[in-house]
Amino acid sequence: MNRKLLLGALAPLLLFPALLSGQTNPGQLFGFRDSDTVAQFNLERRFDANLSAADQDRWMKRLSAFPHNVGSAYDLSNARYIDSLYKSWGFESQIETFEVLYPTPLARQLEMVSPKPYVAILKEIPVAEDPTSDQTDLQLPTFNIYSCDGDVTGDLVYVNYGMPDDYLQLDRMGISVRGKVVIARYGGGWRGIKPKVAAEKGAIGCIIYSDPRDDGYFQGDVYPKGPFKNESGVQRGSVEDMTLYPGDPQTPGYGSTPGAPRLPLDQVKVITKIPVLPISYHDALPLLQSLAGPMAPESWRGALPIPYHIGPGPARVHLLVKFDWSQKPVHDVIARMAGTQFPGQWIIRGNHQDAWVNGADDPLSGQVAMLDEAKSIGALAEAGWRPKRTLIFCSWDGEEPGLLGSTEWVETHEKELDAHGVLYINTDSNEKGLLGMGGSHTLEKFLNGVGMDVTDPERKVPVITRSRASEMVEASPERLRAIQSEAGIQIGALGSGSDFSSFLQHAGIASMDLGYGGEGSGGEYHSIFDSYADFTRFKDPGYVYGLTLSQTTGRCILRFAQADVLPFSFKEFARTVGQYVDEIKASLNEMRVRSADLDELISDSAYLLAADPAKPFARPKREEPVPYLDFAPLDNAVAGLKAAADTFASLHHQALTLQPVLLDSLNDLLYTSERLLLDPAGLPLRPWYRHMIYAPGFYTGYGVKTLPESREAIEQRQWELATAGILREAEALDRLRERIDRMNSLLRD
Amino acid sequence: MNRKLLLGALAPLLLFPALLSGQTNPGQLFGFRDSDTVAQFNLERRFDANLSAADQDRWMKRLSAFPHNVGSAYDLSNARYIDSLYKSWGFESQIETFEVLYPTPLARQLEMVSPKPYVAILKEIPVAEDPTSDQTDLQLPTFNIYSCDGDVTGDLVYVNYGMPDDYLQLDRMGISVRGKVVIARYGGGWRGIKPKVAAEKGAIGCIIYSDPRDDGYFQGDVYPKGPFKNESGVQRGSVEDMTLYPGDPQTPGYGSTPGAPRLPLDQVKVITKIPVLPISYHDALPLLQSLAGPMAPESWRGALPIPYHIGPGPARVHLLVKFDWSQKPVHDVIARMAGTQFPGQWIIRGNHQDAWVNGADDPLSGQVAMLDEAKSIGALAEAGWRPKRTLIFCSWDGEEPGLLGSTEWVETHEKELDAHGVLYINTDSNEKGLLGMGGSHTLEKFLNGVGMDVTDPERKVPVITRSRASEMVEASPERLRAIQSEAGIQIGALGSGSDFSSFLQHAGIASMDLGYGGEGSGGEYHSIFDSYADFTRFKDPGYVYGLTLSQTTGRCILRFAQADVLPFSFKEFARTVGQYVDEIKASLNEMRVRSADLDELISDSAYLLAADPAKPFARPKREEPVPYLDFAPLDNAVAGLKAAADTFASLHHQALTLQPVLLDSLNDLLYTSERLLLDPAGLPLRPWYRHMIYAPGFYTGYGVKTLPESREAIEQRQWELATAGILREAEALDRLRERIDRMNSLLRD
Repeated sequence: MNRKLLLGALAPLLLFPALLSGQTNPGQLFGFRDSDTVAQFNLERRFDANLSAADQDRWMKRLSAFPHNVGSAYDLSNARYIDSLYKSWGFESQIETFEVLYPTPLARQLEMVSPKPYVAILKEIPVAEDPTSDQTDLQLPTFNIYSCDGDVTGDLVYVNYGMPDDYLQLDRMGISVRGKVVIARYGGGWRGIKPKVAAEKGAIGCIIYSDPRDDGYFQGDVYPKGPFKNESGVQRGSVEDMTLYPGDPQTPGYGSTPGAPRLPLDQVKVITKIPVLPISYHDALPLLQSLAGPMAPESWRGALPIPYHIGPGPARVHLLVKFDWSQKPVHDVIARMAGTQFPGQWIIRGNHQDAWVNGADDPLSGQVAMLDEAKSIGALAEAGWRPKRTLIFCSWDGEEPGLLGSTEWVETHEKELDAHGVLYINTDSNEKGLLGMGGSHTLEKFLNGVGMDVTDPERKVPVITRSRASEMVEASPERLRAIQSEAGIQIGALGSGSDFSSFLQHAGIASMDLGYGGEGSGGEYHSIFDSYADFTRFKDPGYVYGLTLSQTTGRCILRFAQADVLPFSFKEFARTVGQYVDEIKASLNEMRVRSADLDELISDSAYLLAADPAKPFARPKREEPVPYLDFAPLDNAVAGLKAAADTFASLHHQALTLQPVLLDSLNDLLYTSERLLLDPAGLPLRPWYRHMIYAPGFYTGYGVKTLPESREAIEQRQWELATAGILREAEALDRLRERIDRMNSLLRD
Repeated sequence: MNRKLLLGALAPLLLFPALLSGQTNPGQLFGFRDSDTVAQFNLERRFDANLSAADQDRWMKRLSAFPHNVGSAYDLSNARYIDSLYKSWGFESQIETFEVLYPTPLARQLEMVSPKPYVAILKEIPVAEDPTSDQTDLQLPTFNIYSCDGDVTGDLVYVNYGMPDDYLQLDRMGISVRGKVVIARYGGGWRGIKPKVAAEKGAIGCIIYSDPRDDGYFQGDVYPKGPFKNESGVQRGSVEDMTLYPGDPQTPGYGSTPGAPRLPLDQVKVITKIPVLPISYHDALPLLQSLAGPMAPESWRGALPIPYHIGPGPARVHLLVKFDWSQKPVHDVIARMAGTQFPGQWIIRGNHQDAWVNGADDPLSGQVAMLDEAKSIGALAEAGWRPKRTLIFCSWDGEEPGLLGSTEWVETHEKELDAHGVLYINTDSNEKGLLGMGGSHTLEKFLNGVGMDVTDPERKVPVITRSRASEMVEASPERLRAIQSEAGIQIGALGSGSDFSSFLQHAGIASMDLGYGGEGSGGEYHSIFDSYADFTRFKDPGYVYGLTLSQTTGRCILRFAQADVLPFSFKEFARTVGQYVDEIKASLNEMRVRSADLDELISDSAYLLAADPAKPFARPKREEPVPYLDFAPLDNAVAGLKAAADTFASLHHQALTLQPVLLDSLNDLLYTSERLLLDPAGLPLRPWYRHMIYAPGFYTGYGVKTLPESREAIEQRQWELATAGILREAEALDRLRERIDRMNSLLRD
């Protein structure tokens, strides 16, 4: 999958005012005694020295040479190659294989049957400038995995991005998709939401196309002249409903090891209810051009040179997809280097290695940076150094279809991870540009420190200084004031879309997701053009940011591996959760005003009077009044948490002088604190998700919903569920507050 | 020209909360004694009964049958026809002719000379469905009048709408247009600003094209399938710099009567400094497609299926325009019906009759509604009724090239108008939809009353109720509160773009501009497709809103003609000017914060650090600090005005019982009060504009700038000029306040 999509859902970064021209004071490395700080900086310097763009390029070339999707020969070949690399660097490496449901197309057809015939080509056209683009025999066809089988014919309706708000708009225009085939453009939210909502609304099929507005010529020159999507490019991708659970669809909550029980296919809820197929704008144009009916609202119109009508019809299409529903193996490569002092504390670093096709950017850009980190740590080990804590490198397979490799591994090793998991560090695609950071907010202070110690290769300032500058020049005056008044970076919250999900949201291990980007945009995502040729021209020539990513995540690994006190901090978490509570209250108040206004305007016939009689009109529906809810439990919990976190921060320096046994206790209490935010019962309707603070949105997918139970219940106007959510979220925060109180007692004594 | 462009510049309407389901109480007609009210309503009922869609259609067909631009045979034929109509209805009508500079093209060439040859076709292609579109021999070619002659060759640069802000953006990208030919799209402001600003920036030529984003296929089906601009459609139009003065370029400030002195052509400042030519998107596509350089900012990109690059080059173009700079006659038709009681008080009603080509919508839709009013009033007169005050109907010629007919007439009759002018009522294009109202804010209360007494033909509620409903359903919650809290409609302020300009801004006669629209949008404006066929299909089939316009403006005429007390009110004016002062203060404060923030960010190198090194970058320039200015004179003037206006409102009922001689005095004081807002010295650099409250913006054109002297000085960072403006504006308001005080004394006695 792709970091960029995820970053769209991250809250904006707030950065230290002092950082613009500042430098971390070398005497103040968070979690380290002064006496250990110099050694740590030396270690990091040696680590950097071993990194190599030439190595990253060699691995990139090797791993992207052929399509390496799940089940392909080259996927296994890559896993074995990566395994051999880890071994060569002194890691105990092994391939862990799971058997997963991995349907591949047996038949795909899309044709317009009226008002004039058109048969979609459903394929991408290789270009001479990109040598791997013509490996046609090895490429997966263009499809959306975990679409159900289907053979439907119906009138077409254009539904914009196909998100819930788009259907509200259709309602207001009096247009129903019941019994129709919808055509949605990619973007606006995770692709899996499109068939999910379409099916809820009664549609019988779903076509997803890439509008040139979003990643084609509207954005810039198209491939191969430039990096953007040409007319034949198609975005593959999963439509598994991983808002219920990710991983193998037939083994929710436990590892898909050989012999494990499988849900019968007809009981699997994460497969779509209607057939789905992705297409290019070459194939979309004749369809959209044949729609009549009202014009789409202005914000719905893309960049094809046509009036965007909504339909329904007269375009009528026949859509057929049929899959081989067999199982395939996924091969996770897991490489360990045992810690010398705390072998039971695991620092886990992961990036997937499977791709939709050749996958140079997604995922190999992050994979080769990670391999470089492992190589460099191997060299340190070769020279006699050993980590205090255990390091585990994971090259995941099967991320693209639905985070399969990481999820099955976490589910299989759940008990060990509960006992030993300290931190999970994820990366995925990586490109030129600015550092994007998401994660548990207990890591915010730590990440600020790391980001100040890595130099941006283009501008020669700390990478965090560039992010801060970018934020500042884009800010409104009010926002600029907010940035300037903030004491630290505010990292984003994690939803889904890459392999951190099961670590954070199922296992309760503090997690982070890092990557550079913003200056290497293109339209190659999940197409045959995400290739070595494309990557080295447009995404990160010279692996300049590949090396920067290795330096960044390498510091995360090495500092967590060696810290005297595990560098968690709770002030930033408490402040951020307080902001989430404020957001939810504000949105409830907005709903109340909006519903009341709507009621008044309906009573006044204002909507009818304002409407153009020549355009379709459906009177808006009245909404029930929005009640006031009791937020006191959350308010109290946040207040208590803030107080405890402030105390912890003020006592933190004491930790460095604790007796070893007490320090060990403190570290144990620290790294297991994220677990306290889990509720074993999980979220309503989706118990796999146990984290009470962070979850992918039920109707956003990759996009995060924070305090998801209360927030989503309010959005869905389920007031009793919201109140229950407020209580359970407050309980989770109270558990963490009690833990911090306990650590404060330990520090005070 | 076109009301719609003007309406874009109007402030949003605020409507009476009570109006949504209310009706005016027939006992309370503003300015009428109870005893006269019933007669007035009867009069208006008889007036309505004489209106006829069939007549409007007959005149529309006759007047739009052939192109009738200035100087054409059919323009004169139409003037004579209209003159004969007025005479047949009992008016004293005559044609007043002026001689004006009216250049027409001798040669037009546009070709791309590299990277590949392209010769622009520079013509519109007739369509079979539109019978008048093939009158090719009679059609003016596609051109912009008052472009200078020119023959230039240069690299092309895309400048978006070519407005001042667009050049700020180019500056930030380090791109200069010096020595280049710019290509700007229509829209974003008045077309004449495009060559004016381009020349200021050093460009040598200016091409203006119609992007399909703005009025082509992006908006809907194109002509003749739908109403929007097809690939050959071209918008003609004036680029006379009427922000300096409108009217004949060679006779600024006085009538262009035969024998009047003419400025030599080389001293005329309202002709462009560089050659200009408008083109279709058929001709623009090859040019834009051949640009390289950085991508245009996202908001600049249109709907052509290409990446919008800025250039400069490699597209290089040769542009040649050469004109016949001879004079042509303009024929104003002026029809009078003398008042019985107050013949020296003139109610003036105008709409232009000249067009760029066949001009069905612009201007005949308004012209035929006005003729229907004159016809109906003629019938009332035929039956024995006579107006108390003198009515003057004006069918203007030469509006399109630069408000020539109305301006020369006002300049010629300036003294009489100063003595007699009570009210000027303007219309122009008229279409299906909602009532748009702009004018002197002393007319706001009056217009509210009229708008409550005219029924919307589609929804059968007062036309004002529909406007209010439209405002409400589009409003944010905060805005909705504001609408609900307002005691009356807030009408828009008038800039320029139609024939009210010289009445209001030069002669100081209270003016209004009315029209319906919003449901008849299309791309026909100033093209060969603004035709009878187009109008009757798309703009106002059945003249349903033509009749509604006649009812609306007819009431304005008849109420002002018959009122016991002229229905001016000052509370709404005082409130609105107070809001303008608040706006200007707020914008000064925003500038201050922005300049200070900019300075800080430049000092921090934030712009450099945030920038993508692969993209062009120019460090923003520091701005001098923004001072605090003394607004006390305006604050005091507004406070005084509000108090006087409130008193006038509370005493107003006394006027109806005044002795006749005192009432006559009051009416004289009332109708000349707008004159007090003129300052004989006029605005800096453009003394033709004398109104201290309303003027077209120097860099917006049609778009209004209220309190223009202080507001524009602040925008241009000319602090001393701003202070001078504040004083002169305060003096104008004080003059009006003194007048109101005088009237209050008269009412008290």
